[in-house]
Amino acid sequence: MTHRLIATIALLLALASPAFAADPLPSWNDGASKAAVIDFVARVTKPGGPDFVPESERIAVFDNDGTLWSEQPVYFQLLFALDRVKAMAPQHPEWKEKPPFKAALAGDMKALAAGGEHALLELVMATHANQTTDEFARVVDEWIRTARHPKTGRLYSEMVYQPMLELLAHLRANGFKTFIVSGGGIEFMRVFAERVYGVPPEQVIGSSIATTFEVRDGVPVLVRQPKIAFVDDKAGKPVGIQQHIGRRPIAAFGNSDGDLQMLQWTAARRGASFCLYVRHDDAAREWAYDRESHIGRLDKGLDEAAARGWTVVSMKSDWKTVHPPVR
Amino acid sequence: MTHRLIATIALLLALASPAFAADPLPSWNDGASKAAVIDFVARVTKPGGPDFVPESERIAVFDNDGTLWSEQPVYFQLLFALDRVKAMAPQHPEWKEKPPFKAALAGDMKALAAGGEHALLELVMATHANQTTDEFARVVDEWIRTARHPKTGRLYSEMVYQPMLELLAHLRANGFKTFIVSGGGIEFMRVFAERVYGVPPEQVIGSSIATTFEVRDGVPVLVRQPKIAFVDDKAGKPVGIQQHIGRRPIAAFGNSDGDLQMLQWTAARRGASFCLYVRHDDAAREWAYDRESHIGRLDKGLDEAAARGWTVVSMKSDWKTVHPPVR
Repeated sequence: MTHRLIATIALLLALASPAFAADPLPSWNDGASKAAVIDFVARVTKPGGPDFVPESERIAVFDNDGTLWSEQPVYFQLLFALDRVKAMAPQHPEWKEKPPFKAALAGDMKALAAGGEHALLELVMATHANQTTDEFARVVDEWIRTARHPKTGRLYSEMVYQPMLELLAHLRANGFKTFIVSGGGIEFMRVFAERVYGVPPEQVIGSSIATTFEVRDGVPVLVRQPKIAFVDDKAGKPVGIQQHIGRRPIAAFGNSDGDLQMLQWTAARRGASFCLYVRHDDAAREWAYDRESHIGRLDKGLDEAAARGWTVVSMKSDWKTVHPPVR
Repeated sequence: MTHRLIATIALLLALASPAFAADPLPSWNDGASKAAVIDFVARVTKPGGPDFVPESERIAVFDNDGTLWSEQPVYFQLLFALDRVKAMAPQHPEWKEKPPFKAALAGDMKALAAGGEHALLELVMATHANQTTDEFARVVDEWIRTARHPKTGRLYSEMVYQPMLELLAHLRANGFKTFIVSGGGIEFMRVFAERVYGVPPEQVIGSSIATTFEVRDGVPVLVRQPKIAFVDDKAGKPVGIQQHIGRRPIAAFGNSDGDLQMLQWTAARRGASFCLYVRHDDAAREWAYDRESHIGRLDKGLDEAAARGWTVVSMKSDWKTVHPPVR
């Protein structure tokens, strides 16, 4: 306890120092979006204030793809699946002639897209299932530490949004528990969410495939099955939130129509709540897309945000920087 | 922050005072079980020690029925369902003649048991589904605050095990995150787990029925469906742990064969781990049952605990008190 005591006192002294009064969101330009975030946090943490929320109920939920990191040209987890197909190909000579695998190996995105959802699902299952949870985690860990984005050449973990990292930290510094609620794979994100976002595995919610418990040669393992168990998107997001958290968030952050129900569920809370959409309008520094996009379409959500006064962040004008600086 | 700062400093002063050296498990008799618990916590929290485990990985999982509170004459959630059938009967005149409901209304447990699992499932669905999550939580809250156990006449929340409350607190005081992993209903337990056990909703794992997101008259709701989604028992427990926590526990506490896979999964962790079974051998102060019981059978688990050197707590000889004193 002595060790923790000293560490905690050091932390308290640091918090009490004038430096703590510094801007908690330095990568955000001054403006309505930044002010709305700062104001909300101040209101719900003010003891005795009309909007005060006890610390145990300060639950904030974040979409991942397009909200915490980029999602173009396609969701990064799909790029992981394509990289895996290539890495696994030597053990699967039959893939050379088999439709979705053939297209994947040739990098023929057009042929892949023509195969539709079924083709993608086949690729995902071939690369995500039929292995233990520990084996899968090792493969993802190796990939996230080495694979590079096709356009920027950066590690995928460097394609996170610096302003959102600051927002996560600001919320946690004010007693919030931050959760990821993503359509992406729960076990995929958990491998890096703690290191990259400061979000521990038990606060990551996502889509999942079925797993079964087996004892192999006396060793218990969990085996990933080629069967969808849960799709954490659209109406699935409030369902996933209830299943994992069991209480309603007071703040929700997304970037697409897939997040709309999560924001609606949060906004319908009795008492203070905060909903924010990140809008991709920065073709120069990131990508620009919304109502017509196949990836991360933001159409109904944009209308509802306008009607209900939710905060809509313009990446172009609200953010000083998008990704963390190159080290 | 100032408010939290003061509270935290007060807490630190309290922790640093000699009182903190007091026995953390006062309701446990001195002996091998108590010593094993105390020793394990000391080892994994000793910085630089061979068994040290970082705080983020100090995950402890507890079964609920028979491990944290009693489970006789039947699981308390079944008594809740029976109470609900009675309360809902005026709105369901047809139940008077319909088999499982007729038996439930007459308190005819023999007829109920004869209906088997199917009859019980029918009662559970009739009382647990077709309502919103908020409505269900209100009903459970009212019940847990007023309903009384048929034998002891105490509130169900008073039929928790005082020594286990102390164990939960001791683990949390040493940086552990405590989770409930129960075959009982996740939404049922969440209503009282924080108040009764100090375990917040997001750290409760259990069986569940499906829910769907709907917008009713502009208000988003989650509706509980009469369909089993997940059974958190036996091989389901490691699956539920992985799904909700995403990392392996270092300590697991149970009382029946339904907990065996959870203990196996925990014991197979690389590094220090701790597994404990509570044995119901106290007919005078609680109930005595194990290998032959229909409720909370402990048979294979007892053999495996002996073979692997897991701690087996005798309620009769290891615990000074069973339930908290009557106030």
